[in-house]
Amino acid sequence: MFFASDNSGPTHPKVLEALVNANNGYRSGYGADAEMDIVTAQIRELFEAPDAAVFLVGTGTAANAILLATLTNPWDTIFCSPMAHIHEDECNAPEFYTNAKLTLVPAENAKMTPEALRISMQNEGNRGVHGPQHGPVSISQVTEMGTVHTLDELRALTKIAREFGSKVHMDGARFANALATLNCTPAEMTWKSGIDAVSFGGTKNGLMGVEACVIFDPEKAWEFQLRRKRGGHLFSKHRYLSAQMQAYLTDNLWLSMATEANARCAQLAQGLVTNIAVTFVEKPEANIIFARFPRHLHQRLLNAGANYYVIDGDPQAGDLDAILTARLVTDWSATAEDVENFLNIING
Amino acid sequence: MFFASDNSGPTHPKVLEALVNANNGYRSGYGADAEMDIVTAQIRELFEAPDAAVFLVGTGTAANAILLATLTNPWDTIFCSPMAHIHEDECNAPEFYTNAKLTLVPAENAKMTPEALRISMQNEGNRGVHGPQHGPVSISQVTEMGTVHTLDELRALTKIAREFGSKVHMDGARFANALATLNCTPAEMTWKSGIDAVSFGGTKNGLMGVEACVIFDPEKAWEFQLRRKRGGHLFSKHRYLSAQMQAYLTDNLWLSMATEANARCAQLAQGLVTNIAVTFVEKPEANIIFARFPRHLHQRLLNAGANYYVIDGDPQAGDLDAILTARLVTDWSATAEDVENFLNIING
Amino acid sequence: MFFASDNSGPTHPKVLEALVNANNGYRSGYGADAEMDIVTAQIRELFEAPDAAVFLVGTGTAANAILLATLTNPWDTIFCSPMAHIHEDECNAPEFYTNAKLTLVPAENAKMTPEALRISMQNEGNRGVHGPQHGPVSISQVTEMGTVHTLDELRALTKIAREFGSKVHMDGARFANALATLNCTPAEMTWKSGIDAVSFGGTKNGLMGVEACVIFDPEKAWEFQLRRKRGGHLFSKHRYLSAQMQAYLTDNLWLSMATEANARCAQLAQGLVTNIAVTFVEKPEANIIFARFPRHLHQRLLNAGANYYVIDGDPQAGDLDAILTARLVTDWSATAEDVENFLNIING
Amino acid sequence: MFFASDNSGPTHPKVLEALVNANNGYRSGYGADAEMDIVTAQIRELFEAPDAAVFLVGTGTAANAILLATLTNPWDTIFCSPMAHIHEDECNAPEFYTNAKLTLVPAENAKMTPEALRISMQNEGNRGVHGPQHGPVSISQVTEMGTVHTLDELRALTKIAREFGSKVHMDGARFANALATLNCTPAEMTWKSGIDAVSFGGTKNGLMGVEACVIFDPEKAWEFQLRRKRGGHLFSKHRYLSAQMQAYLTDNLWLSMATEANARCAQLAQGLVTNIAVTFVEKPEANIIFARFPRHLHQRLLNAGANYYVIDGDPQAGDLDAILTARLVTDWSATAEDVENFLNIING
Repeated sequence: MFFASDNSGPTHPKVLEALVNANNGYRSGYGADAEMDIVTAQIRELFEAPDAAVFLVGTGTAANAILLATLTNPWDTIFCSPMAHIHEDECNAPEFYTNAKLTLVPAENAKMTPEALRISMQNEGNRGVHGPQHGPVSISQVTEMGTVHTLDELRALTKIAREFGSKVHMDGARFANALATLNCTPAEMTWKSGIDAVSFGGTKNGLMGVEACVIFDPEKAWEFQLRRKRGGHLFSKHRYLSAQMQAYLTDNLWLSMATEANARCAQLAQGLVTNIAVTFVEKPEANIIFARFPRHLHQRLLNAGANYYVIDGDPQAGDLDAILTARLVTDWSATAEDVENFLNIING
Repeated sequence: MFFASDNSGPTHPKVLEALVNANNGYRSGYGADAEMDIVTAQIRELFEAPDAAVFLVGTGTAANAILLATLTNPWDTIFCSPMAHIHEDECNAPEFYTNAKLTLVPAENAKMTPEALRISMQNEGNRGVHGPQHGPVSISQVTEMGTVHTLDELRALTKIAREFGSKVHMDGARFANALATLNCTPAEMTWKSGIDAVSFGGTKNGLMGVEACVIFDPEKAWEFQLRRKRGGHLFSKHRYLSAQMQAYLTDNLWLSMATEANARCAQLAQGLVTNIAVTFVEKPEANIIFARFPRHLHQRLLNAGANYYVIDGDPQAGDLDAILTARLVTDWSATAEDVENFLNIING
Repeated sequence: MFFASDNSGPTHPKVLEALVNANNGYRSGYGADAEMDIVTAQIRELFEAPDAAVFLVGTGTAANAILLATLTNPWDTIFCSPMAHIHEDECNAPEFYTNAKLTLVPAENAKMTPEALRISMQNEGNRGVHGPQHGPVSISQVTEMGTVHTLDELRALTKIAREFGSKVHMDGARFANALATLNCTPAEMTWKSGIDAVSFGGTKNGLMGVEACVIFDPEKAWEFQLRRKRGGHLFSKHRYLSAQMQAYLTDNLWLSMATEANARCAQLAQGLVTNIAVTFVEKPEANIIFARFPRHLHQRLLNAGANYYVIDGDPQAGDLDAILTARLVTDWSATAEDVENFLNIING
Repeated sequence: MFFASDNSGPTHPKVLEALVNANNGYRSGYGADAEMDIVTAQIRELFEAPDAAVFLVGTGTAANAILLATLTNPWDTIFCSPMAHIHEDECNAPEFYTNAKLTLVPAENAKMTPEALRISMQNEGNRGVHGPQHGPVSISQVTEMGTVHTLDELRALTKIAREFGSKVHMDGARFANALATLNCTPAEMTWKSGIDAVSFGGTKNGLMGVEACVIFDPEKAWEFQLRRKRGGHLFSKHRYLSAQMQAYLTDNLWLSMATEANARCAQLAQGLVTNIAVTFVEKPEANIIFARFPRHLHQRLLNAGANYYVIDGDPQAGDLDAILTARLVTDWSATAEDVENFLNIING
């Protein structure tokens, strides 16, 4: 009953197996390994983008910060949701790598609305040399609230960005979970919808710590590589990142794992919705649920060994009927039994 | 016959085994894993430093840059050898993380001499607010030329740093190889010789990509953590770094691997010294040789499948008797047979 | 009828005279001029702060950015009003000098409310290493809307900052105008109310381009000097800044000029309040008015030669009855006749 | 007898007069003043560069750092002489503004030799993504040793820069003094010799603190303006910079002052050369002399009120016959009598 985070779960056995298989003899370092050539080809095929630049890094924060830096001037402002990981959870890494500013765009269900984005972009970047200029728009897909932008929503946002001459970055830490929800192609969810650069996350979905950075304009490839090295994110024994990503991309393992994680989340939601003591903050659309229920139910769950975050209070101290919010995240390794056990405790 | 780099070799089977063993169930992320607690205790015991702050990152460049940043103000200059990795091979990562400057101190055998360090520190930092101030001294142990500072040499350098109020950083990407040479304790090679912070390298010595950063003054611990996160170097699935480092530290695996690498280097040197066509640039003291011999011998080796860098010319084109320099690096997985084959080809 | 900005007006004749008087012979540079010794003594006496560090720079943006940098770590967030000059009008200079982030605190009349500041400081800096840490609070006095914090309001904000361990910066670009309004002492408006560092503005109040940076904790003095030099803001012929500031501080010229500017603003407000077509966005408290009135009145004024900013539309094109907002700023050199002329046109 | 620095002297009366004349009424700020339009036209005509971008800042450090930042990527290295002001005397301002590195090129008489520049550019930027890339070459004209590059020397250096794809920056803090020596046109000493951007210094030559930044490729104009504002170097009351520069450019005042300063330096050199106790470190070519003579002569001069720097020892303490080096700088306001007095003391 571990629903604290999808980056606390294990690595898929096929990924470990790929690491073992890659562990033979010597290999050129720093991305010049044969495995990386395969990964690049796989990603380009998957995204229907034969010219895309593809690079691997070890963390989602590195992926976001370096991608953003290739799209941003130091005198720009980056437009994102107030709940965006790049704003809330990266300890100023975007500011460090870009030396620019973030503008928080009002959002509903953690999704910037087109109207709010337009107003924000009108209000910033209109003071000539005195204020910041228009930098990129950054969209989290899945959002930090567990919602998923539809293709129409993505296109509405990227269209506005284009009007202001801005590029669009997608934080795809949970790219696979979003795609499993939308049931579209990676191309449709990215460049066909106006995305210029995307992190294709692996860490939260069964890898040890690998994210692919995909830039659809290959002119930025060399700059990305220099920024990656300068940030200390170019791995000498790069094959161990490539091997993981190769396994991830083989036989759609990435999508299978995300589909499984989403299914467990749906199972959890279906069980919770029957409980009249439980309300949802947002309709869960991928592998994250924000659910509100009384403290005594939290205590029952936690005391029985459930593991998740209560985000707005101490579940162990205070009025037993007070309503507190649980953040429940399922990963690829969550089992139907785990979910059932959890539901039996809260519903039983 | 792969002597191109010690970071192109494989991972030790015990390290892979540790990864497999760590791959069970859920674990708290971001360094709060149980494996990391063990690693911290292991390192503190190994370095006889019960209060030391210990953190893991994925690359040597990250280790150096973040450690230096905790010791440096943006208006300082860092003193290092002109051959230092932080100057030559990190694409301005130290400048990025510290925003400061590097002062290159004349060196012999890639080791700054005490006299040169003193003169450099006298000549910099003496112009009040107009020039840079005294930042830390950075020492590579093993140096980039394959030489090793004796304890006396370390102490002579750190003593001068102290006179100018400067801290001392050790780039220990090949820490284990240096220790295997000096046959001293880690404490003796670091804090007992005046080192304030050291990267304890694993990547070049049998790990996939893990370096331990050890700071002897624990007051800097929190700053290091913030700088690590801000640089995108805090791994969510941190257990996979911890597990590697734990295996590395268990039963002195780290020292055994370095001893083996050094032994292969010595075997190679002993075989080369008998060849009158070969001269050494430096006396090899760890696991790196710089050897000079005619182009026709390079061609014979390379055509037979040997893999190493020729650093001062094209081995395949030009006067066959021209002397070119080979950089030969042995790692833990190099075999005596490999070395023998290499020697048979060049000597035979 | 020039009410566009108080930094477009001329320099006071006494300031020019001081420049002429300072132009004799040679003088030590970089702040070591005799005039600067006098300025330091004057400021310390004026602020009743015998240990304060006092430095001059040429622009308000430099004063804010360098002062903030001495109070901020790169992993912090700075709390300020959404209308703050440091956010809106400095093209990311604070981000450049601090490498940190700004958190916008909801404000009324451009003044952060204590409640909003407390909530912002609770919501930021509570995610451990993942999010930014608590940096300083920055207060504009006069605000960008022309309002002035009372001493009670200042103390309420600085008290909250203290609870979170944060320092407080005051953007005093219009320090003199605020003091003329509050009729208190500089000490009361700064360190006695919990301010740690303040820019004492001269440029908007009759100097050519000089701001004094006052830091009440002298331990930061050397860091400020290094940051000033590193930012390119240490003037070699520093006497020409000192001489201006010395004249400004002599015989309370600074306060006389601000009092005059405020008086002209009050005259303007009194005349406008009688016009039923005019409403005020905020009650004018210093030397700035935001007034709303129909486009045809704007046209009448502008066509008669009045010079000011219309901030929310084109005064020359559109519905003549549409309401547009004027920003009217008076400086020390505005005359009662100018104001009267303006009022005659709009009211006549 | 003040020969300590040319930035300690007074401002020319015509410059003060221009300030007084500019002090009438209101003027648009931030560079939109009518005086600046004139300055831009004057500079374009003077440099025979009708498209050049022209901007003013208040300090030489700002001019160098911002110009370099427009020519440099953060992953580059800038090539300069070890004595360059940007390396020695700007407290890491170039590193702050560019976030890049400086490579010190061996120099003779403070002038990089073409051979040394070529070797440096060959040795840096040849390690792919691992090392820094080729950034601009920066040339000081006059050098910090008082020497002046001939046009042939400039062309030899810029030709090499071009071969490596690098731009060339000229630190023209003493541009006027160099031009007075070479007796060529500003165009010949800059773009006709391969210079891309130059600071046209005024501060050391009779202004209060104004440098013109001239960029021959106008595409960089907007970036320069953003970097200037972001660095806090855009003056609101900009007319007071423009007015000084306008006076400076009118009737060749800039060149007259430099010619006078150089003439006083030549007079000084001619008088010293007759003294057998005096030797020159470099042949003085502009307005700076480095001369070596015994301590007892230093004492005689200093005790008589001469003011200059002794750069390699304490003139008042030690062996009276020991040789110490004087740095003697003449500015526009130095008089023939001053020089004569100085010579009488040392020679008499």
